[in-house]
Amino acid sequence: MAHIQVKRLLVNYKTLEEFRAFREYGAAELSMKDDLNESIIENDSESPFYGIYYGKKLVARMSLYRINAQFDRYFEPPQDFLELWKLEVLPPYQGKGYGRALVDFAKQFNLPIKTNARQSTGEFWEKLGFESVTYNETRDRGESPYVWFPNGVQEQTAQTN
Amino acid sequence: MAHIQVKRLLVNYKTLEEFRAFREYGAAELSMKDDLNESIIENDSESPFYGIYYGKKLVARMSLYRINAQFDRYFEPPQDFLELWKLEVLPPYQGKGYGRALVDFAKQFNLPIKTNARQSTGEFWEKLGFESVTYNETRDRGESPYVWFPNGVQEQTAQTN
Repeated sequence: MAHIQVKRLLVNYKTLEEFRAFREYGAAELSMKDDLNESIIENDSESPFYGIYYGKKLVARMSLYRINAQFDRYFEPPQDFLELWKLEVLPPYQGKGYGRALVDFAKQFNLPIKTNARQSTGEFWEKLGFESVTYNETRDRGESPYVWFPNGVQEQTAQTN
Repeated sequence: MAHIQVKRLLVNYKTLEEFRAFREYGAAELSMKDDLNESIIENDSESPFYGIYYGKKLVARMSLYRINAQFDRYFEPPQDFLELWKLEVLPPYQGKGYGRALVDFAKQFNLPIKTNARQSTGEFWEKLGFESVTYNETRDRGESPYVWFPNGVQEQTAQTN
């Protein structure tokens, strides 16, 4: 699928308008809009979102955030990892490999990845090489964490609380 | 709505079977089933879930978890608070006050409550007296946090990272 291109999304009014088509529209998006309105961030600042356009239309997106090793409770040895959330492909564009393209993009950083499988999307994550981790209520608080291990990384087992 | 009764749910095969009707069925539920199968927990152990039965059928539920003050990044003064998640009413039973009854139950502990508004449920939370907090990407990582303040409690503003 060489034609699928993943782009870092810039914060501007066009992107923010496109975000409204996604189900998981919430505080992150509203906060960007406020920051833009109040000139707290510049137009075309980099966002934590990456997306895929079909023509000029944003049809898929995800958010990636690099978590510092000191907060790592998922991987052994503890290290910086990526938290991936809001992976979403607009319904008419599903089944075309856009979700996989976004996740492949995330893997290229060669850091461990942690995500939360929503509403029985576990199979999707497993197809992409993710594994569920042992549920820990204190750490996971209702999430269904799925993780991807680069070579040499494994699940962290010693839980301290 | 005096007839709506909220019950602490016990971990047993009947409860676990009922959980399968809920959309947000994930690692927490699977973990309980494993623990029961392997006798790691006893039958009828207390779960972090509370629910409402209609006759013998579980029609609404939520999970509550008490977070220690040392992890509080939402409330001022920092204190123990409740994290509420997986609030869900089965579709045929929506609009009958079951969601409100569960949240009212949570408020009775008189601790601050934090939840994550999913998919534009902000209005629901606002009707119940919750407020959105200022989005902080490091802390909130894509969530849309809504909080409820008991008397004398306010939003924590000093963010250290």
